[in-house]
Amino acid sequence: MDAHEKGFFTEENSVEVVTGRNKNAKDERLKQIMEVVTRKLHEAVKEIEPNQDEWMQAILFMTRTGQMCNEWRQEFILLSDVLGVSMLVDAINNRKPSGASESTVLGPFHVEGAPELSMGANICLDAKGEDMVIGGRILDTAGQPIGDAVIDVWQANDEGFYDVQQQGIQPDFNLRGVFRTGADGRYWFRAVKPKYYPIPDDGPVGKLLGALGRHPYRPAHLHYIIKAHGFETLTTHIFDPDDPYIQSDAVFGVKESLLAQFQHVEDPVRANELGFSGKFWQIEHDFVLARPEE
Amino acid sequence: MDAHEKGFFTEENSVEVVTGRNKNAKDERLKQIMEVVTRKLHEAVKEIEPNQDEWMQAILFMTRTGQMCNEWRQEFILLSDVLGVSMLVDAINNRKPSGASESTVLGPFHVEGAPELSMGANICLDAKGEDMVIGGRILDTAGQPIGDAVIDVWQANDEGFYDVQQQGIQPDFNLRGVFRTGADGRYWFRAVKPKYYPIPDDGPVGKLLGALGRHPYRPAHLHYIIKAHGFETLTTHIFDPDDPYIQSDAVFGVKESLLAQFQHVEDPVRANELGFSGKFWQIEHDFVLARPEE
Repeated sequence: MDAHEKGFFTEENSVEVVTGRNKNAKDERLKQIMEVVTRKLHEAVKEIEPNQDEWMQAILFMTRTGQMCNEWRQEFILLSDVLGVSMLVDAINNRKPSGASESTVLGPFHVEGAPELSMGANICLDAKGEDMVIGGRILDTAGQPIGDAVIDVWQANDEGFYDVQQQGIQPDFNLRGVFRTGADGRYWFRAVKPKYYPIPDDGPVGKLLGALGRHPYRPAHLHYIIKAHGFETLTTHIFDPDDPYIQSDAVFGVKESLLAQFQHVEDPVRANELGFSGKFWQIEHDFVLARPEE
Repeated sequence: MDAHEKGFFTEENSVEVVTGRNKNAKDERLKQIMEVVTRKLHEAVKEIEPNQDEWMQAILFMTRTGQMCNEWRQEFILLSDVLGVSMLVDAINNRKPSGASESTVLGPFHVEGAPELSMGANICLDAKGEDMVIGGRILDTAGQPIGDAVIDVWQANDEGFYDVQQQGIQPDFNLRGVFRTGADGRYWFRAVKPKYYPIPDDGPVGKLLGALGRHPYRPAHLHYIIKAHGFETLTTHIFDPDDPYIQSDAVFGVKESLLAQFQHVEDPVRANELGFSGKFWQIEHDFVLARPEE
């Protein structure tokens, strides 16, 4: 027997030797995943040819990333986000038919149990920021309105913080709300213009971004989860296309179809109707839901 | 401009969009490493097509692995070991000329400052285990002896534990020693027959091995670091070829050329000379060092 027949490890047969050990795995899916992970990991090592010091730096980076995690902070999700892995997993799991609104990442700031509000309510509870009114329709891919669709919306304030990041400063459930459409599929509510903000960059992932010459900012956006009976749930954002970071979202969440028009409106009569005191922002944006069978 | 021109992320252009952000990286090597890491990571995700739950399981596995690490335990090195990455990095950094002894992993139990002993000393300080005598020569690739070579040796005891794992039970520096060759390049010392042992398997890596149907054992071995002026330092093991785990080392450290012959000797006269009380084990193993220019 030569080394290969005995199953000893060599640089050439490294993948076969390592994955060959998994033949008794109970779970076929885990076995398949580890076959791909091992093969791609070895391909990367063979292409990079790290020296021992670089290998140790990689070990320590992963260790620090794990140790940064706690109940409030998930540094490995952040790493997945800034390497485009989260968006790739989202894309793979949400391939939509033509005409349907596209998905993007959920993000870490969704909160269950936000209050259901009447259409038109103002989700801004502390009157801070530039007034904004947002409306549109929930449609199917044939352009027909969807009634009884539930829209869960949340956003950062005009300083770039979510309520849960500023407990005691912002009111609970500030800039969050749940709305339900009538038969016309129409929704509308009032809010404030969101602002770009940095992802948490005081940990290993932030240091990596810095070393790569990358900034940590996400362009201004509103988050949506839209559910309706008989349709696929849509988790998405709408973005301000004039944001300075619109072409360089730190987590790659921007898609062409998620750009909304933020119109700056000067109309004292309408402002008065809306309870606004001066100029305000207006967005009109439809969402198109797909059926599972589409 | 279409989405691609604007640099927005799509499933198809995911690698180019993410790595394109690194154009201002200060360190060319880091930029190159992250290009390969990102490309291979995206290739793996596209081949695996994980669902959101599988992605989250991967995130939590990495998190737990980082959080298992402390001053005494490095779970990411263990992960690197059981996936063959440590051996691959070792192989890439230690390509030896024909005839030179091969390297293998250092392992976590090397201790600096072990005592330098006279040739023939017994490194077993607690008289536990089966007696063993080990000898051989340190040679260059032309077969000439290397004088003044320093041999740092360490091993687990016959229960599979290193001294540092059993502080207070084993004497300090038990089964460790440093020897220096004379002009004949010859070394010899006394010890006990080592035994197979499990890598630490009470953490996430141990759970992964279990799920893959793999055992955590390393076959019985002795560790060596051999240094000599004008030669490349050799970090290696010798293994017992009759060990039950010789073809399935949990960390893939075994190579054909590292198998030593463990001879069981019944020779009362020699046993008496060696200070042994009965049958003993004998190993004769030469090490061949390479010059950097070879």
